[in-house]
Amino acid sequence: MLEKLKEEVFLANLELPERGLIKYTWGNVSAMDPDSGYFVIKPSGVSYDEMQPSDMVVVDLDNNVVEGELNPSSDTPTHAVLYRAFPEIGGIVHTHSTWATIWAQAGLDVPAMGTTHADTFYGAVPCARFLTQAEIDAGYERETGNVIVETFKERQIRPSDIPGVLLHGHGPFTWGKDAKTAVMNAVVLEEVCQMNLLTRQLNSYAEELPQRILDKHYLRKHGENAYYGQGK
Amino acid sequence: MLEKLKEEVFLANLELPERGLIKYTWGNVSAMDPDSGYFVIKPSGVSYDEMQPSDMVVVDLDNNVVEGELNPSSDTPTHAVLYRAFPEIGGIVHTHSTWATIWAQAGLDVPAMGTTHADTFYGAVPCARFLTQAEIDAGYERETGNVIVETFKERQIRPSDIPGVLLHGHGPFTWGKDAKTAVMNAVVLEEVCQMNLLTRQLNSYAEELPQRILDKHYLRKHGENAYYGQGK
Amino acid sequence: MLEKLKEEVFLANLELPERGLIKYTWGNVSAMDPDSGYFVIKPSGVSYDEMQPSDMVVVDLDNNVVEGELNPSSDTPTHAVLYRAFPEIGGIVHTHSTWATIWAQAGLDVPAMGTTHADTFYGAVPCARFLTQAEIDAGYERETGNVIVETFKERQIRPSDIPGVLLHGHGPFTWGKDAKTAVMNAVVLEEVCQMNLLTRQLNSYAEELPQRILDKHYLRKHGENAYYGQGK
Amino acid sequence: MLEKLKEEVFLANLELPERGLIKYTWGNVSAMDPDSGYFVIKPSGVSYDEMQPSDMVVVDLDNNVVEGELNPSSDTPTHAVLYRAFPEIGGIVHTHSTWATIWAQAGLDVPAMGTTHADTFYGAVPCARFLTQAEIDAGYERETGNVIVETFKERQIRPSDIPGVLLHGHGPFTWGKDAKTAVMNAVVLEEVCQMNLLTRQLNSYAEELPQRILDKHYLRKHGENAYYGQGK
Repeated sequence: MLEKLKEEVFLANLELPERGLIKYTWGNVSAMDPDSGYFVIKPSGVSYDEMQPSDMVVVDLDNNVVEGELNPSSDTPTHAVLYRAFPEIGGIVHTHSTWATIWAQAGLDVPAMGTTHADTFYGAVPCARFLTQAEIDAGYERETGNVIVETFKERQIRPSDIPGVLLHGHGPFTWGKDAKTAVMNAVVLEEVCQMNLLTRQLNSYAEELPQRILDKHYLRKHGENAYYGQGK
Repeated sequence: MLEKLKEEVFLANLELPERGLIKYTWGNVSAMDPDSGYFVIKPSGVSYDEMQPSDMVVVDLDNNVVEGELNPSSDTPTHAVLYRAFPEIGGIVHTHSTWATIWAQAGLDVPAMGTTHADTFYGAVPCARFLTQAEIDAGYERETGNVIVETFKERQIRPSDIPGVLLHGHGPFTWGKDAKTAVMNAVVLEEVCQMNLLTRQLNSYAEELPQRILDKHYLRKHGENAYYGQGK
Repeated sequence: MLEKLKEEVFLANLELPERGLIKYTWGNVSAMDPDSGYFVIKPSGVSYDEMQPSDMVVVDLDNNVVEGELNPSSDTPTHAVLYRAFPEIGGIVHTHSTWATIWAQAGLDVPAMGTTHADTFYGAVPCARFLTQAEIDAGYERETGNVIVETFKERQIRPSDIPGVLLHGHGPFTWGKDAKTAVMNAVVLEEVCQMNLLTRQLNSYAEELPQRILDKHYLRKHGENAYYGQGK
Repeated sequence: MLEKLKEEVFLANLELPERGLIKYTWGNVSAMDPDSGYFVIKPSGVSYDEMQPSDMVVVDLDNNVVEGELNPSSDTPTHAVLYRAFPEIGGIVHTHSTWATIWAQAGLDVPAMGTTHADTFYGAVPCARFLTQAEIDAGYERETGNVIVETFKERQIRPSDIPGVLLHGHGPFTWGKDAKTAVMNAVVLEEVCQMNLLTRQLNSYAEELPQRILDKHYLRKHGENAYYGQGK
């Protein structure tokens, strides 16, 4: 079942090492099938050299394996929570990509310092807090999802405006309308994390991107009157 | 029409990811045809894997599409302004390359710290100011070109002496006698941006390249008595 | 003899340049054969382009060549000491990989700043002291092994919990259940060395990973109730 | 004439971009033929894609072209001075490699911070001073060679002990017994320049490699009783 989506998820997972976002199996991509309410995710700890589209695992939003021989990614419950809470998203990516993880380890939100950021993220990418011992005990991966959802709720951020988050001490999650877009958003986040760290090393007083330019760049690509690309 | 120039522009665009200057479609190259007064530019948001030479768009200096099925790059009006104001240039490149963008986000001119810089840029590469709200409203991409022209006029820089600029909070534009040279100048700018940031991290008091050596290196390649390469 | 192990050691050595851990021949991998008590190691200073599986050298724990035409790696006595002292390990890697060597040159332990670290190393990776003149004279490579063993003994670290070490002014050694795992641990160490250096540059007060999350991540992969991957 | 040497010089030049030391044509390699007293060097400004072994230029120590259709590298007079002054060397490399150029722009000697350095350079790699106006006027490239020679003489360094130098505001020159070794020394210098910059960023008080370990590592590879590699 869901053969086309499995192929998409498979290819999106392969993009992670190709684009320098992960080494070995340190990441995972999933995608949602809105009709069935199931999502497709990478198996856990399988070498990318040996992985096949048919190894992708179909899971429901309660983390039950619907189809597949292999264990799904250990981060599956995090994905499930995000698909439930953010019904507008169709694909999710988790990596330990170098520069985004540096910001995650530093425990800092990633401010919008330039238009590379503004083309994708409509403001700072938040860094979610560490889990408590009680949360770890209750189910680490599921509660990781809950802390992300809490972060977006408390700060009143729409997940479509800021399609990504950092987990303190861990790394980034990004999402998008599909798996491919979620990977692209992971690439953008990685890039701005590198640039923003070095921007303030070069000029400690470098200012954030003015709101008017943030608006312009985000909206020319994502607003109602977007005119970027080949869209109608 | 302009099939040879389309091929050149196509190949120059492909060079951007090959040389590590861009990811996805985050850049664009154009080239001028002096006879017709038209220029050829990359289409907007088309994947480099699928792009063909015939997808290049022919545009006039008023941004009218003369030939082509696809929308031209959204930055086309910036290119048009530069070709009008700087008639000596034949090719233009825009990227969000990592290190040049870091300097753009820091809002700083790139000083000449070494001969790698001096071989191409005859002095500091300027960083142009942010656009005002009025300029954004009047036409963001065209006014971006105007701010570049203003920067070179106010500082009395000849565009052939310093074939590039940074846009505050955005990234670099470079140019040259043709598309290929404009790409090379983008590579040089990227390289010196990395080196110059780290030079002052290594030695906060590192001095700029003495004028006499700047003169020597720039002029042995670009002066009247240039003796670099296989030129007569 | 030990043809299968030679092939494994050969392939693991080739992984070093492929994964960006070494240039030229600046590294070596070995693997233990528990049945014979011999280990297999790369020959010294042979170009990776010309090296064959049959060039791998079989050595006993007293550094006698048991089989092989070529001189074994000059670091062979270090490997021998580690196999003797840490009977639980099956493979050893030595590199001068950039970021791990930076920490080695800085003479600092690598603290656990994130889950990338915690997935492999159950706490800080120690930096072993410089050798004394007497130790150098007594046998530099053997005494290098002894200083590593001393470091783990004094700090009461189990080599399986922290499968790696830095040598002050030199570079990293890592190990694992086999050569392939030892290479993977070298990749992890290289990655966390880069991330941890930059984490404190981004936020000088960035805190170490809380113990509860270190426990959770290390134990979900390596503990008795590990549930990562496809294991039973 | 000197077909074998031309092939070696050609291949060594190709190694420069392959090993990440240069972009475009920003470097040059030469090699000496002791019998004839001629040396072979890359032509100036020829694209590496089009370059052939037969394009290499044969030059005498007075910079006269002995054989070859193309102009030799504009840095040829620097090479000639070095071959005259340092008769023990057989190959020379000049690049603008990123990290070595950063040290050159900072105007600092590269201290021996680790064994990667000690395996090749027996002490700090010196940074030679800027040329004066008079020296530039007298012949920039030849005087560049003279300033290198002056640096080694004044500091009483043997060119075989420290096979490389930085030129203030410019970049590195390295040398060796042949072109291939000179390239390897350029790779080592590039690597230690990166590591040493970041070592002191990680720990401002990081100490230089103790003399006893510098001695041990340099001499086990280069001393009378060297035992590294497959040498007799």
